[in-house]
Amino acid sequence: MAIEKVGFVGLGIMGAPMAANLLKAGFEVTVWNRTAARADPLIALGARVAGSPAEVSAASEVTVSCVSDSPDVDLVALGPGGIIEGAAAGSAYIDCSTISPAVARKVAAALGAKGVEMLDAPVSGGDVGAKAGTLAIMVGGDADVFERCLPVLQAMGKTFVFCGPSGSGQVVKLCNQVAGALNLLAMAEAITLCRRAGVDPAKMLEVVGAGAASSWMIQNLGPRAVRGDFAPGFMVELMQKDLRLVQETSAETATPLPGAALVQQILRTLEARGRGKDGTQAIVDAVASLAGD
Amino acid sequence: MAIEKVGFVGLGIMGAPMAANLLKAGFEVTVWNRTAARADPLIALGARVAGSPAEVSAASEVTVSCVSDSPDVDLVALGPGGIIEGAAAGSAYIDCSTISPAVARKVAAALGAKGVEMLDAPVSGGDVGAKAGTLAIMVGGDADVFERCLPVLQAMGKTFVFCGPSGSGQVVKLCNQVAGALNLLAMAEAITLCRRAGVDPAKMLEVVGAGAASSWMIQNLGPRAVRGDFAPGFMVELMQKDLRLVQETSAETATPLPGAALVQQILRTLEARGRGKDGTQAIVDAVASLAGD
Amino acid sequence: MAIEKVGFVGLGIMGAPMAANLLKAGFEVTVWNRTAARADPLIALGARVAGSPAEVSAASEVTVSCVSDSPDVDLVALGPGGIIEGAAAGSAYIDCSTISPAVARKVAAALGAKGVEMLDAPVSGGDVGAKAGTLAIMVGGDADVFERCLPVLQAMGKTFVFCGPSGSGQVVKLCNQVAGALNLLAMAEAITLCRRAGVDPAKMLEVVGAGAASSWMIQNLGPRAVRGDFAPGFMVELMQKDLRLVQETSAETATPLPGAALVQQILRTLEARGRGKDGTQAIVDAVASLAGD
Amino acid sequence: MAIEKVGFVGLGIMGAPMAANLLKAGFEVTVWNRTAARADPLIALGARVAGSPAEVSAASEVTVSCVSDSPDVDLVALGPGGIIEGAAAGSAYIDCSTISPAVARKVAAALGAKGVEMLDAPVSGGDVGAKAGTLAIMVGGDADVFERCLPVLQAMGKTFVFCGPSGSGQVVKLCNQVAGALNLLAMAEAITLCRRAGVDPAKMLEVVGAGAASSWMIQNLGPRAVRGDFAPGFMVELMQKDLRLVQETSAETATPLPGAALVQQILRTLEARGRGKDGTQAIVDAVASLAGD
Repeated sequence: MAIEKVGFVGLGIMGAPMAANLLKAGFEVTVWNRTAARADPLIALGARVAGSPAEVSAASEVTVSCVSDSPDVDLVALGPGGIIEGAAAGSAYIDCSTISPAVARKVAAALGAKGVEMLDAPVSGGDVGAKAGTLAIMVGGDADVFERCLPVLQAMGKTFVFCGPSGSGQVVKLCNQVAGALNLLAMAEAITLCRRAGVDPAKMLEVVGAGAASSWMIQNLGPRAVRGDFAPGFMVELMQKDLRLVQETSAETATPLPGAALVQQILRTLEARGRGKDGTQAIVDAVASLAGD
Repeated sequence: MAIEKVGFVGLGIMGAPMAANLLKAGFEVTVWNRTAARADPLIALGARVAGSPAEVSAASEVTVSCVSDSPDVDLVALGPGGIIEGAAAGSAYIDCSTISPAVARKVAAALGAKGVEMLDAPVSGGDVGAKAGTLAIMVGGDADVFERCLPVLQAMGKTFVFCGPSGSGQVVKLCNQVAGALNLLAMAEAITLCRRAGVDPAKMLEVVGAGAASSWMIQNLGPRAVRGDFAPGFMVELMQKDLRLVQETSAETATPLPGAALVQQILRTLEARGRGKDGTQAIVDAVASLAGD
Repeated sequence: MAIEKVGFVGLGIMGAPMAANLLKAGFEVTVWNRTAARADPLIALGARVAGSPAEVSAASEVTVSCVSDSPDVDLVALGPGGIIEGAAAGSAYIDCSTISPAVARKVAAALGAKGVEMLDAPVSGGDVGAKAGTLAIMVGGDADVFERCLPVLQAMGKTFVFCGPSGSGQVVKLCNQVAGALNLLAMAEAITLCRRAGVDPAKMLEVVGAGAASSWMIQNLGPRAVRGDFAPGFMVELMQKDLRLVQETSAETATPLPGAALVQQILRTLEARGRGKDGTQAIVDAVASLAGD
Repeated sequence: MAIEKVGFVGLGIMGAPMAANLLKAGFEVTVWNRTAARADPLIALGARVAGSPAEVSAASEVTVSCVSDSPDVDLVALGPGGIIEGAAAGSAYIDCSTISPAVARKVAAALGAKGVEMLDAPVSGGDVGAKAGTLAIMVGGDADVFERCLPVLQAMGKTFVFCGPSGSGQVVKLCNQVAGALNLLAMAEAITLCRRAGVDPAKMLEVVGAGAASSWMIQNLGPRAVRGDFAPGFMVELMQKDLRLVQETSAETATPLPGAALVQQILRTLEARGRGKDGTQAIVDAVASLAGD
């Protein structure tokens, strides 16, 4: 029996276009957002508005959320008026926020005790991917639930990888951020050394981007960093939030991650200069400032 | 007037196939190697053997070298019986070793004083690329000399980027190694966190390799690292040699590179365990050992 | 008018002997502990037991607490049945826990709104200093309140430094932990290099401990580390808790602390091996394990 | 039979006062310096001047040297006109420079083959200690030679620790620099966090300097750093030279030293700003600059 009614909690930069894509895909969508006015464009597209996350889940077979951080998921899922209060046994909850795997597991366990299945399903691809419906989605939870919810995921994204039991989607997302953060540092140190040694970094990016030291960051953010374009694809302060989650998981699993910890400290240089809302390619300025540039 | 006579000094894993490609391209090739027996396969292909680098350069319009490190270039170029002793004014010298930019400039200046032009032309692509003639070559020196020597370079590689004045090729190569080293650490920390958090790293590599945190290392060495295949594409001890050159240039240019310095220390863990001849993907074991695995 | 009635909340390894010293100094002491049985030895010394932190503060002119972490202080001070519910306007609250400066300020503000003055007063000196009454106490808050509460502090410690407004005591304690953590790493890297270079580390500690590279750690923990005595003065897991607070404050104040972040990662190696309850001198084993020893 | 004739090679900031102290102790002293004029003040004190290190050693039972770096020792000991050419079998050579343990061993072996015994005897205590004759001296070599040369060492220093066979003195000196460098970073991160969290760092140094996180650096250089006094006790560029030797030995012994490597990079920030001749306490400015201060 096909899913018809989908709820959406959290209509931010990511959530709003994801909910819009659910509407376009033909689902009946009920939404809720802390700041109610953000629901208006979705109402225009046919969404119904609920008065609380509990009302959203009461009206939905599958409720999706996309909020900022672990405590926000805790609140909208398990807090007063939360999803848990309205969700019927047999319904499902998909959280697309990037949060701590431990919190994802805790919320899943609480919902599971009431017969509600949860998938942790953080996304990658930014607001561009959210609008285009081309997000990559990493999913943790029960494989059958993943299969059942696939139509909902397909309305929002393009790539879906089932990673394992509850929390696995969040783990993979954090690994993604570890790799991305260090690839950023790689780009920044290469550019800084190149400049200080008197060579045009654009030449360097051309060569490096063609070989074994290449990365998405080198190819895509390197040229922007070199020409001083710091408009955000992904903001420094969001990377810092994710690296904080990485350190929480590093602590919980006793996993030393000296490289990720180093990037976190270097990005603080940007925050100290009020540049938390720059794109992550601004790391090149943080590394340059180490050299007094 | 086309170049006909090319010399080659240093017939190691890289140099031997590069010299063979020069022969295949129709050049008259004179070779020299410290260990004379390594010249035998090239003699079979038509090479002449000289008794010293000076004899090589005396017989050649362009002399190429590919040796291990800065002191080796210093020796074969400027030492007793070195290239400088035989090279005629107007001839050219192309060094394809990866060495210190400062040493490249010093050797270029010494040769320049005798009317011999030098290009620093480190290569990327490994022994596979050397055999196939598909190396990427980063070139520093005089642009006219680069143009003039292009037929020689074309016999050995496929991509040629002129990076700027003498030493620039080496600078770009070191930037390449900085980026590559940190991309390796990115791969290793992502795999280690994934494993310790209980998720299959193959799943993670699949997702990460498809998005903004991807890199050549994630895509090519990640799967080998995960299945414990540590056969060398590029050996740990060679990466360490290059990272030492990076630190020398970091010191000369007063460029702090904390990330590159960290990778250098982490790779020492492998050297301490006698694994210097493993491929660089073995860094995953170094990071895992931090976690007691 | 002299303070006579003092309350104490939190009778752990530090709190129990501190409360005992208050009794010995002649104060009337009312105590509360989550696990009630821990109050028994203090009852034997003359303490009264209350049923909640609120009952303690209702019975006391000055209430002292010594608990584990920021959320614990939040709970005993501001939670249900917390100190805030019983404390009379004009009474004072001294928190001797090591917690986040931001949480200290928040609790102080909440109490201040009810006319209750708070000092943040973390201590240094370990259980030995708590028993002997020789703790060093770093105090943040109002200078007059500090003066007024001095007799209470004098019963528990020997050195008192007033550091500035609310939160300043915690800031200074975190700075102390940053310095201590890096001094530990200094000791561990020196010992490891010494051993691997084939020299007796006891000789090294003798020389280094006498000169400009000396530290309390080198002099006191170095010899224990060298002879493999890992009995805790201060446990690895407590240092990790404090370094987590350091990173929280590093994030709030946008202060890059790459050294402190590195020590945190290296200590994880010990936690990964189940050695979180070893003394911090075990860091020498973490650094040695980097070298495969 | 008592030693009467002592030679001294290298009359720099350290060497000149050390040679003066040998004269004051009653030895007949023959000196040599690359820049001859630096010998004049010693001639006034009774020294004889030789035309080369070989002439010094030919005139001396024990020859002492104090030069800058490994290649300098190599040159004055083994180069043309070097100590080895003049030294009689049975005479001794004491090198007080801070150099690579491997080079110390190499020089000792070369001299040993001619029957000349060598001690590596790097010193600690700065120019103040050199003048006052209060240097701490760490000695590697043969224990009997150490005993025999003790009168010479006693004229120059106050503390003497025999560390083991040839090279051991240098190893211990490098361990000293590892510990000192990290203690410096400890001081700098503590001061920076303190300032950015709004607390007077002088208060912090007072407390920290009295407890388990104290160090010579905190007690002696901390107050100077806080008041912006960057006059050199020990210059940044000399610490960098020693940290380079540390990394060479780290590489030779496959010993990962991530902390020492990090300090090296942070000190480059000062070199990039032309502050290599500031005292090492200037590291506080390097860490502050990470925070944009």
